[in-house]
Amino acid sequence: MNITGKARLYAIVGDPVAHVRVPAVFNARFAAHGTDAACVPLHVGAAGLAAAVGGLRALLNLDGFVVTAPHKHAIVALCDEVVGEGRLVGAVNAVRRGADGRLVGDLFDGQGFVAGLRAAGHSPQGKRVFLMGAGGAASAVGFALARAGVAAITIHNRTAPRAEALARKLQAAYPSCDVRAGSAHPAGHDLAVNATSVGLEPGDPLPFDVSALPRTTVVAEVLMKPEKTALLAAAERRGCPIHLGRHMLDRQVDLMFEFFAAR
Amino acid sequence: MNITGKARLYAIVGDPVAHVRVPAVFNARFAAHGTDAACVPLHVGAAGLAAAVGGLRALLNLDGFVVTAPHKHAIVALCDEVVGEGRLVGAVNAVRRGADGRLVGDLFDGQGFVAGLRAAGHSPQGKRVFLMGAGGAASAVGFALARAGVAAITIHNRTAPRAEALARKLQAAYPSCDVRAGSAHPAGHDLAVNATSVGLEPGDPLPFDVSALPRTTVVAEVLMKPEKTALLAAAERRGCPIHLGRHMLDRQVDLMFEFFAAR
Repeated sequence: MNITGKARLYAIVGDPVAHVRVPAVFNARFAAHGTDAACVPLHVGAAGLAAAVGGLRALLNLDGFVVTAPHKHAIVALCDEVVGEGRLVGAVNAVRRGADGRLVGDLFDGQGFVAGLRAAGHSPQGKRVFLMGAGGAASAVGFALARAGVAAITIHNRTAPRAEALARKLQAAYPSCDVRAGSAHPAGHDLAVNATSVGLEPGDPLPFDVSALPRTTVVAEVLMKPEKTALLAAAERRGCPIHLGRHMLDRQVDLMFEFFAAR
Repeated sequence: MNITGKARLYAIVGDPVAHVRVPAVFNARFAAHGTDAACVPLHVGAAGLAAAVGGLRALLNLDGFVVTAPHKHAIVALCDEVVGEGRLVGAVNAVRRGADGRLVGDLFDGQGFVAGLRAAGHSPQGKRVFLMGAGGAASAVGFALARAGVAAITIHNRTAPRAEALARKLQAAYPSCDVRAGSAHPAGHDLAVNATSVGLEPGDPLPFDVSALPRTTVVAEVLMKPEKTALLAAAERRGCPIHLGRHMLDRQVDLMFEFFAAR
């Protein structure tokens, strides 16, 4: 990898950034394609986000940047426009910079999740989905699944009004999908997704019970660490197909490159 | 070169930046030392400089950046402190970022020029110098030569009052050096330096006449393109030792790394 003065720039903005894989993944792609471009990690705290984004806007050779925790919501107000899934969910994880400095944001978590499902042979078309959680990840996954043509989504959340609110938003955006808030039990669904942070810590309980699931229900995660969460391990023991959280990220890189290229 | 999330960042800010060698030189050094760091070009116009610098200040993993044309003067007001040669000349080409975001600027053009002379075996100590020009480059070279212990500096500039003003500034800073404005003829000097842009364009006249110079006078350039200017070619034909403009840049990298490391 040889960064010349003509290199196009990409970045990932987060706090922390020490763990991020985006520079390695992007730069490997640039090297493989012989593209004179580079992606660097930008460690930016909440207090510095507006200044950092103002600076990125002034970089004439910057094509775009990825946004990770904790800035996915705060970045929305710093974009000139938020489109697609980003607008529906109210969160952004990729921003492209137009030649005039205009910043357009979108979110690829949900689309990445759906693309990952499809790549694993789990077509969402017409499926009945159990969605655990009603936060940012659940919202992204819910919108993308509805868009991908699932027949129904049942949302459960520890705080019930949040599940009801997300169900109403989803139902309004996709009237042909049957969306409702429901119980904590995933029975009767073809796909059961954990979109909460339960499972991140070693002592966590399972986010939902898999002991009564038919062996045809696919159990999926949004959590990436550990790669095989306790939920996935339990589903595997039950004999259900499982779907790892990291596929959500793996599939986003292509989507983001398409988005950056449309600048 | 593998940029991880833990990489320390360096940059060069300019307009244009397509021609800059700094990322290649810095990154080769990082690779040779196994340092997890990266240097990228930042293409920033005059209108975006303040925003870009505000953004760089917010990057917690940025160690510093190089500044090139046309921003060497404008950057001064955007630093929290300007030290050394930068303060004397009123121009900055390297900025380091403290852990608290504090930006300290300095200028290494003159020091780089002197270090290049020394590396080529031309000790400036006690020498009589003819300096053509009174702009930014001439000022940087003049201050660094005076600091390095030359006995005398004669400055000529097409606009005489600028030569006189630089002579006064230099004389005030280095009372033991004999500094004055003088004629366009370099006779009677041990070192004759072109510190103007005359010679950059193919049809340019020579910045000064070398036809009467003794064969002991070293003729030096600050211009880097063409590598061997018409002035240097003429001096070579005359039998004088010549000193290329690129040595000024070559020697600055070490000086800048020391400066960045002192953050």
